[in-house]
Amino acid sequence: MDEDEVRTEAWWGRRAWVLLSAVRARAPLVQCITNLVSMDIVANALLAAGASPAMLHCLREVPDFSPRCDAVYINVGTLSEDWLPSMRAAASAGRPWVFDPVAVAASGFRMEVCLSLLALRPAVVRGNASEILALASRSDNSSFKGVDSSHDSSDALQAAKALAQSNGAVVAVSGAVDFITDGVQVVSASNGVPMMQKITATGCAVTALIAAFVGADPSDALVAAACALAIFGLAGEIGMESAKGPASLRMHLIDALYSLDEQTVTSRVKISLLP
Amino acid sequence: MDEDEVRTEAWWGRRAWVLLSAVRARAPLVQCITNLVSMDIVANALLAAGASPAMLHCLREVPDFSPRCDAVYINVGTLSEDWLPSMRAAASAGRPWVFDPVAVAASGFRMEVCLSLLALRPAVVRGNASEILALASRSDNSSFKGVDSSHDSSDALQAAKALAQSNGAVVAVSGAVDFITDGVQVVSASNGVPMMQKITATGCAVTALIAAFVGADPSDALVAAACALAIFGLAGEIGMESAKGPASLRMHLIDALYSLDEQTVTSRVKISLLP
Amino acid sequence: MDEDEVRTEAWWGRRAWVLLSAVRARAPLVQCITNLVSMDIVANALLAAGASPAMLHCLREVPDFSPRCDAVYINVGTLSEDWLPSMRAAASAGRPWVFDPVAVAASGFRMEVCLSLLALRPAVVRGNASEILALASRSDNSSFKGVDSSHDSSDALQAAKALAQSNGAVVAVSGAVDFITDGVQVVSASNGVPMMQKITATGCAVTALIAAFVGADPSDALVAAACALAIFGLAGEIGMESAKGPASLRMHLIDALYSLDEQTVTSRVKISLLP
Repeated sequence: MDEDEVRTEAWWGRRAWVLLSAVRARAPLVQCITNLVSMDIVANALLAAGASPAMLHCLREVPDFSPRCDAVYINVGTLSEDWLPSMRAAASAGRPWVFDPVAVAASGFRMEVCLSLLALRPAVVRGNASEILALASRSDNSSFKGVDSSHDSSDALQAAKALAQSNGAVVAVSGAVDFITDGVQVVSASNGVPMMQKITATGCAVTALIAAFVGADPSDALVAAACALAIFGLAGEIGMESAKGPASLRMHLIDALYSLDEQTVTSRVKISLLP
Repeated sequence: MDEDEVRTEAWWGRRAWVLLSAVRARAPLVQCITNLVSMDIVANALLAAGASPAMLHCLREVPDFSPRCDAVYINVGTLSEDWLPSMRAAASAGRPWVFDPVAVAASGFRMEVCLSLLALRPAVVRGNASEILALASRSDNSSFKGVDSSHDSSDALQAAKALAQSNGAVVAVSGAVDFITDGVQVVSASNGVPMMQKITATGCAVTALIAAFVGADPSDALVAAACALAIFGLAGEIGMESAKGPASLRMHLIDALYSLDEQTVTSRVKISLLP
Repeated sequence: MDEDEVRTEAWWGRRAWVLLSAVRARAPLVQCITNLVSMDIVANALLAAGASPAMLHCLREVPDFSPRCDAVYINVGTLSEDWLPSMRAAASAGRPWVFDPVAVAASGFRMEVCLSLLALRPAVVRGNASEILALASRSDNSSFKGVDSSHDSSDALQAAKALAQSNGAVVAVSGAVDFITDGVQVVSASNGVPMMQKITATGCAVTALIAAFVGADPSDALVAAACALAIFGLAGEIGMESAKGPASLRMHLIDALYSLDEQTVTSRVKISLLP
């Protein structure tokens, strides 16, 4: 980045378009070790965006396969002990990887697993506010109330910065407004519609999209994460124009992601650098 | 329940609305240990109804997680030996749980597993007629012809009553007309459309919805099960008004479930107490 | 088949209709041991076509269950070691089985597994050109670029014939034009639209449909495979008339598969025997 360049909203819109175009042109191969609920929407979102998803979690394949990938996506939603060695091996394969610590506070075991994965230096961690708060405080939460967040994303901003600083990762907190930070800079992305919360695994899908963006251009994970979040949210906004409920929103969102054009992206992406 | 209260169809319509409203207001946390085919539609149906689904099947998480749930849903569709300890532990966590003995007659092993789960005292068992008949007679069936029922629900009514009496569970037999019984009373619910059979895992989804209704109000599992079945069937009826085939029906059904209002529910739910 | 019968495009159209009608009338029970991404679309495509899918991969159930099935479908997309014994047992149960060697070149281990399954004599093997080329040359490919093919189907025609001859299986190479061969005859099927590549697991779904067609009429696997591929592609063409992107295409494709009528099938199926 040109240090002197001013990152206006227009700059971000152009950047989002450049990155989406890179995904479409390069079709980054994204290995996904993701939860069982999310497989369908993750694969379809990646395909619609132009990436090449590969759901592959067999330990014996990781040494051959993971190093060839452009990025790796790891999600602990339906955690099981027998998948952990593959998660660790894929995260250690030398490719940029993106981490989704779904429901990290659901159990002490899950917290342990997430902290051990965090030590393998993901390029990006994306969670909702409750997840980022729990991860930053390293404690499972006896008031855990399910996979949805019980906090606003802004509540987790300081936790996200601390987590980014201590782990050297970009940390994204998604919510009505998404915040993305490398521990120093904070960027907000505010595309999206509330009904996306009523579709299962949209959080998983957007985190996979972050992996695709990082895979297409690994030079700046903060920018990649912010643009992927905004692009996915924008697809949700366009989808919402035709939706009659969460199931039709899901369909229209994926269709919109596939069809996004330069004019729409550059004019509607809402990202800004916080002062 | 007021013993003197007359359970007219209007009473059931109001009751269904009260329970759906309770699900929306309380967002019961429902742990789902369900089959791999059904994950997406189960999670999306629960979200659309207002519940909070959590697909979590890791044995090491059950002691922390299951006791915090409002209800547990267990479904043996894609049975595997390594998930059984989690199923047993979650069913034994002290929360009301709902059981879906998918294709119980498919093998001797599956029958064994289902009988052992049944011994853990589910609040509700929901199956099609073939499943309830097999479970009640405790025998796998060499004429097994797949996951769809080869019997009418009324064929299984006596089996359902016997099963309810011997296990202390509410037993629901779904079909063109659903029958729900606690071994003494029998209630029929007759919402729904035949094309729902052509969508995979609608039976799983409605059983998960029963768990959500029981989780929102555990006081009367018979009423909860009947109302959940009717509500899901009603969403199917409304979905059918716009559907052009099973895939669009699936989408419109979920959208309808999300959008159901008081007037629609109270006027269109068809439940009655059999004499 | 009448040896003297001339296999015109009209003959194939009638044959496709006869086979689809047989699937609808007989509802063949198809055991699917398939990848985790594909479960939903495979089950829904089979249901829409009139077949009875059963996703069942537990080794202890195979001896009871697989021999009762009309066909078995095995797909290694999300390969895991613990599923292999079930795959081998189901493939050895004496029923016709259909093999989908997804991403066979992704790793040395996957190649080994696919070659060992191939030795269990599938009735049909269906892959894209890259998969068939890799399988025929028995080598994983360090230039592997994801689950999509990086070759045209015609590139793999000789490999498909060699594979068919050495294994006694019908081999289908799907692509813009599908080629189906028993090692001697080669048939082309050219229904379908490019956007089907942007829906995850359409290849898995059409291979499962081949299993359903073989299950409904095992007398000629070459004809069954060609007709299933053409029927699925035709459903895609009809779906495309209403689609606005890959997610709506998926919905309309399944709806179309459910609704196909004699006139449409006989007039629009494009199959021909290559000279």
